[in-house]
Order: sequence, then structure tokens, then C-alpha cells
Amino acid sequence: MPTGAGPRRVQEIFTAALDLLTEHGYDGLTIEAIAQRAGVHKTTLYRWWSSKDELLAAAVTGSALLEFPVADTGSLRGDLLAVATRLSRLLTRPATAAVLAAVPGRPLLAEATNAFFTGRLTRDHPVFTRAVERGELAADSDADLVVDLLAGALWFHLLLCGGSADRRYLARLVDSVLTGVSARRA
Amino acid sequence: MPTGAGPRRVQEIFTAALDLLTEHGYDGLTIEAIAQRAGVHKTTLYRWWSSKDELLAAAVTGSALLEFPVADTGSLRGDLLAVATRLSRLLTRPATAAVLAAVPGRPLLAEATNAFFTGRLTRDHPVFTRAVERGELAADSDADLVVDLLAGALWFHLLLCGGSADRRYLARLVDSVLTGVSARRA
Repeated sequence: MPTGAGPRRVQEIFTAALDLLTEHGYDGLTIEAIAQRAGVHKTTLYRWWSSKDELLAAAVTGSALLEFPVADTGSLRGDLLAVATRLSRLLTRPATAAVLAAVPGRPLLAEATNAFFTGRLTRDHPVFTRAVERGELAADSDADLVVDLLAGALWFHLLLCGGSADRRYLARLVDSVLTGVSARRA
Repeated sequence: MPTGAGPRRVQEIFTAALDLLTEHGYDGLTIEAIAQRAGVHKTTLYRWWSSKDELLAAAVTGSALLEFPVADTGSLRGDLLAVATRLSRLLTRPATAAVLAAVPGRPLLAEATNAFFTGRLTRDHPVFTRAVERGELAADSDADLVVDLLAGALWFHLLLCGGSADRRYLARLVDSVLTGVSARRA
């Protein structure tokens, strides 16, 4: 966060940047337009971020728009269902599509997107430590692999195969991650 | 496939298109350069594909470079491991990165990429019907969900989190898909 800026003001700038990116795409986005919508002077923005990519990267990792609370429902199944539900909403938001479309060939944005997902996963780790404490997960289980499965399946299904994720799909996904697809598990 | 063109000649054109895309990126790719490398006249290419995007889309869905054989190892675990191994190689190839980077904002390429993955999954369906016949999968299990999990986890892990997928990761991934991550499965 830039020094001397209130967190609320910074959030207004991030919101303006993501909204304008969604409306006009990367090529149509300018620092001037972000300044105008956020009600700050463009020289102020240039003092904090030296380029459009730097500002966008900061918005991707820091915007409250892309934030969601860590799940704590009392069971691993409930928590994973909550994570999957929120993630499916995030992945289908126009702002997310606009960010992902802008990533290829822009290292700062690619790095910010990676940092965003890594950060999300780190914040979700209590889901797994609580599950180990309740005996729902083995102590040596790999939380990152669970996230690869859950987030990856949603990503592939929603963004690559053009599918949709209703409650039934999300429940089947979480149950498959928990108990596997093999007929021999019973 | 264009009428009047031998399949070998068409493959040479697709190879030239994907190689040049990998070397120069989308903006640096021209129909002229593809024609020159494939040893055909550029008017021939324009007769078959009206634009660079149309030719690239045809290459994505039709090139033998992006093809791999359907697994048939005798067990579901072996087959899934083979699919995961080949998919992880495909996803980390420079040509794949070049295609995926060119997709955003280009509907023909997005459609071709979706068709490529959907087509791959359709060709892998014998893996699941054989597993049902061997009693390794329930008859009502959802092959598409298995593919979402396997392909999605690899996609997320390799392309979004910048991870690598060695034999140990691939084995853990397949075992998690088969038997789940829950400690209560035992």
C-alpha cells in the first residue's frame, strides 16, 4: 500500500481500476480514467505506481473486491463446499475474466495473479489444520494438493470447458475430492 | 481439413504455424511466413483458411503435434497416471503456452482451444468405460468430473501456481482422485 494514502482511498482506486478494466479491456484502460473515476489526481497515481501494469498488479493482489472470508462451518465438507462456492462465483465474475484476459505477455500481471491465488490458498490453510485436529484429514495430508484439485477442477470446468457449477456440481466435486471416485473405496 | 490437400501436407502447414507462433508470438506470426516454412504458396493457404486465426484454430484442433494416444495399461490407476503424465507434458510445452497466450480476445482461438480439450476428453472415454467393466468405477460415475479433477489440478498447479509435476506429484494426484483425501475413507 502506498504511504500516506488511507486504505479506503486505495480501495476506491483499485475498484476504479478493476471496473474500468472490465468495461474497456486492457487496451482501453488509462491511468487518467482511473484517476478521474476514483476522484484523485493522476500525478498522485503516478507517484504510487509507475505504470498501468503496476497499478493493476496492486489491485489484483490488494482489492477487497476479489476478497472472500475463510470458511469455518465446523466440518471439512462444509468448509470445502463454502470455498468451492465462493471460488466458483469469483471465477465467473466479469472482473476476473478481464484480469485473466490481460495476463498473457504481461509479467507484472502474471506475477500478481499467481500471488493472488497463492495468497488465497495460504489464508484457507486453517480449513485444513482444523480438519486435521477433528480427525477428518490425516496429519500428513497435502493441503496444496486439495486446493489444486478443488480450484483446478472449477477452473477447468468453468473457464476452459465453458461449464456451469450449480449446487449439485459443487457437492459432487467436494465429495469426489473427499472420498475419491474409485468404486473400491467402499 | 481442406479438400484437395493431402493429410501430410496439411500437417506440415499446422506444424509451421505452431512453430512460428511459438517462436514469434501471435503478433509476429504471418500467413506469408507459414507458407514459406511449409513450402506452399500463400494463396493456397488463403484458399483454405481466410485468416491467420482460422488457420491457427485449425492447427489447434487438427495438429498431430498436440495429439497423444489414449491410455490402455490394464488398470484405471495406470491409465489415469498415463493421462496425467502426457497432459503435464502437453501443458508445459512452449507451443501450448504460445497458443494459450494468444487465446484471450480471439473467439476463433478460444473456441478451438475448448474444442481441443473437449475432443481430448471424448477420446479418453474408453479409459472410463473399461474401468466400469473391470469394476474399478461405479457404472454411474461421472467421467467428466474425473477429467475436471485430473486436468484441472494439473492446469492450476503447473500454469497458475508455477509448480512442477514430477512422478511423485503425479502419483499423489492420481491416488487422491481415486481414493480421496478424507482420513475417514479407511
